[in-house]
Amino acid sequence: MSTSGGAGGPDGGASAVALETVRERDREIQLLTHIEAQLRWDQETQLPAKGVVERAEQLATLEAIIHQRATDPALGDALDEADAGAGAGDGVSVHDRALLREVRRAYEHRVKLPESLVTEIARQSSVNQAAWVRAREASDFALFASELERTVELILQRVACLADETTASPYDVLLDEFEPYMKTAEVVAVFDELRPRLVALLDGIRGSSVSIDGTVLARSYDTNTQRSFSDELLAALGFERDRGRLDVSAHPFSTTLGPDDVRVTTRFAENLVSSSVFGTIHECGHGLYELGVDPALAASALGAGVSLGIHESQSRFWENVVGRSRAFWEHFLPRLSAHFPQQLADQDVDSFYAAINRVEPSFIRVEADEVTYNLHILLRFTLEQQLVEGSLQVSELPEAWRALSRDLLGIDPTAAADGVLQDIHWSAFLIGYFPTYTLGNLYGAQLAAALQRDLGELAPLLQEAQFTPILEWLRSNIHRHGATYPARELCERATGTSLTAAHFVTYLENKYRALYLL
Amino acid sequence: MSTSGGAGGPDGGASAVALETVRERDREIQLLTHIEAQLRWDQETQLPAKGVVERAEQLATLEAIIHQRATDPALGDALDEADAGAGAGDGVSVHDRALLREVRRAYEHRVKLPESLVTEIARQSSVNQAAWVRAREASDFALFASELERTVELILQRVACLADETTASPYDVLLDEFEPYMKTAEVVAVFDELRPRLVALLDGIRGSSVSIDGTVLARSYDTNTQRSFSDELLAALGFERDRGRLDVSAHPFSTTLGPDDVRVTTRFAENLVSSSVFGTIHECGHGLYELGVDPALAASALGAGVSLGIHESQSRFWENVVGRSRAFWEHFLPRLSAHFPQQLADQDVDSFYAAINRVEPSFIRVEADEVTYNLHILLRFTLEQQLVEGSLQVSELPEAWRALSRDLLGIDPTAAADGVLQDIHWSAFLIGYFPTYTLGNLYGAQLAAALQRDLGELAPLLQEAQFTPILEWLRSNIHRHGATYPARELCERATGTSLTAAHFVTYLENKYRALYLL
Repeated sequence: MSTSGGAGGPDGGASAVALETVRERDREIQLLTHIEAQLRWDQETQLPAKGVVERAEQLATLEAIIHQRATDPALGDALDEADAGAGAGDGVSVHDRALLREVRRAYEHRVKLPESLVTEIARQSSVNQAAWVRAREASDFALFASELERTVELILQRVACLADETTASPYDVLLDEFEPYMKTAEVVAVFDELRPRLVALLDGIRGSSVSIDGTVLARSYDTNTQRSFSDELLAALGFERDRGRLDVSAHPFSTTLGPDDVRVTTRFAENLVSSSVFGTIHECGHGLYELGVDPALAASALGAGVSLGIHESQSRFWENVVGRSRAFWEHFLPRLSAHFPQQLADQDVDSFYAAINRVEPSFIRVEADEVTYNLHILLRFTLEQQLVEGSLQVSELPEAWRALSRDLLGIDPTAAADGVLQDIHWSAFLIGYFPTYTLGNLYGAQLAAALQRDLGELAPLLQEAQFTPILEWLRSNIHRHGATYPARELCERATGTSLTAAHFVTYLENKYRALYLL
Repeated sequence: MSTSGGAGGPDGGASAVALETVRERDREIQLLTHIEAQLRWDQETQLPAKGVVERAEQLATLEAIIHQRATDPALGDALDEADAGAGAGDGVSVHDRALLREVRRAYEHRVKLPESLVTEIARQSSVNQAAWVRAREASDFALFASELERTVELILQRVACLADETTASPYDVLLDEFEPYMKTAEVVAVFDELRPRLVALLDGIRGSSVSIDGTVLARSYDTNTQRSFSDELLAALGFERDRGRLDVSAHPFSTTLGPDDVRVTTRFAENLVSSSVFGTIHECGHGLYELGVDPALAASALGAGVSLGIHESQSRFWENVVGRSRAFWEHFLPRLSAHFPQQLADQDVDSFYAAINRVEPSFIRVEADEVTYNLHILLRFTLEQQLVEGSLQVSELPEAWRALSRDLLGIDPTAAADGVLQDIHWSAFLIGYFPTYTLGNLYGAQLAAALQRDLGELAPLLQEAQFTPILEWLRSNIHRHGATYPARELCERATGTSLTAAHFVTYLENKYRALYLL
């Protein structure tokens, strides 16, 4: 409560009341958003098959209420008044300024989009889903092309509504929806740093005499036993089970239903034990971020992770920097072997560590290793930019995809299902989303470097499964802040510098030169 | 859609529009109510322990939105206009008339209660929960008495708001909240029919030379295996798993989250196999009712069971008339024995049938058998009536409870925890609720008699686990109608007569005279 008129000036009292109004209205919107998250979590993990029909209506009803609340002119008025007070006075806390920034951001975003366009995008999304599934099954891009053309048109209409004086490219607007306040030029810059080093490293690996056998991961692993191991992993990593859950879904995800209710999912494949192990660690990383937000920010616009890139930095840090390290498996391989003694009888730490880090260019992004993964993202980022900037037509996409795949990965996906049709994202209007995966890898490596600057080498901690100091460092430097600081500022505060690809490249080169004896 | 002005008269067009408005607004309220059911189901079955704090806020936020929608004067206006048209014209369908009746009923109920009273009742409920728990643990009624006095005061304030020209007793208003349109005098009448026959039957059983051994039910039964058997039961009874779920909760319940999403719960006690078996069948009975409602009534005020009494008739019919019959276990005992061969090695159908129907007066209602159960309800009904009519003071309750227990059950609960403090209901303002349990038993037996009139004896069907004709009869006569017909009318349509205790008494006497050789 800040009704003491601390904002100063003749409007201090009124602006303090306005700030309280913003707080209360934001809180209601966040509570309703958590309810929406509950409905969606249930749909992915619990809902009986036929329940999906009414669930869609429930979600539409709730979304309409949220939209009405989030675009209420009274909220706009309160924001104006509170902003005026915050501008005049100096008694406004960092959190209140950040709250006003984030609530305004969400408000403006909603208010600027006409309802007719939102409706049309929702309609086209449904059409797209079915068209994309058909096209992918037939591996025939022509069955999806006209829908994608319409999708790009609608996306450009959306860009036109949202663009402002800082917009240098239509892609800026799209990127900003997932990675707030970041510009396309910054992403281009880190990819320019990244691309030659990744391509060179991949060339080296292809020329290496080392051949890694990954077939151990594809033996038969009882899924109930995998589940027990996932539970052990969560406990070891500090995921509090009285504040969260682990469930099964077709596509793993993490979701926040409240400050003390963060739920992660994984999937268990009998013939790919790495799928549940790394899926669990990855989603746990997302979940730990949300569980670490300062309780004072609960159910506010600041009460969640600040951007998809920072979120992915947490999941990738735990999955790759921690979970795919040799030291981690010095501790956990004996434990996994206790569950699967026969399957792992022929393994030692070196062979298992190599198996989980085997590099091989492949068509499908979601199956990619650490080295090739970001080349997949660069491919999409390049094509997306060209599409929305008008230098590439939808009809030219399949060939452009193949050409870039040859350039970057050295392989040619002749079937559209293995190339341009592999991801569902574009059909769901998620253009501008892919780069956040790579940003996550870069932020993750940069944070890991800063963490080791402060705590010393990670390996000794991982060998002993001493994750508490690591988690505490992340909580203190990243998690607790929620969305208080934009990603750029958060990164600078935690690491001392702005985003760079240097730490990630160093991490990859050190790790894979050793593995492949380069 | 009925925009063709079928309601007739000069206002036909306007009243048809008003009717459509009522439909749309009711639909939104029902969708929001299903969302609330989702949050509550999750709280009982999934929610991490610490998530309960924000969940309470989410529920309060959603309930405030539902209340605003449900008391919107525009809904009242639409109801008035639609009612005027329905009164004038003859083109209004049975469903539309019923919809107007039920939406008005809910609207009036909400509008008549001042917000200050609703808030005060909510506050007192929270206080009561904690006070009741403390009092029960200490078995000291004095620790709860003042809260219960305040509760009765608030209940009488509520009665004053809701009473109308049909109210003969304050209890009428309370009963009507759970068993719409039923009057206290009708409940008194069936209990008058019931009481002497139950007491006489119980006397006979106590004097019988037959002694039934029920200890087989308390052997050790693996709970995972019990779960498998519960799944088998649900499948056999026709509970569609693509339209529902079975989960575990501390207190079994059934809830409707949508027309194709009905969820039941049970609990598994290692040393009481009957708990999960009959709990599952009971909740399945509730669930089948909701799943059988005409899809045309989905997400409307008519789209759920019509009253708690009719609801309980479905659960009790399946649990007792079907599930505790000898014929049922001719089929299922071999199946249960396949799961638990050692535990049931010494059982035949007769011994098992006797064990699950053993009669013994006990202090605790929820553990009562079929014969004594309704005497427990009569005890509460009698005391509740006296309390709200002013002929009994809260301070006199403990002694009055013991006296009635001696009269009806022949046992004296000297400890308050075994008597007046055993149920949580009064602390939750559920006065007027208990009689619906007995109404359910009576309706259930009356429906069973009508069903056998139409289909012939049940036993041959049960011996073969042929439940489809039974379920189809219930769907056709009860389930599909939802809340279209008030319970009284529904009962008359299905059975040809109004509610009577005769069928239940006959059922009990036939069954227990045979079991106890009376």
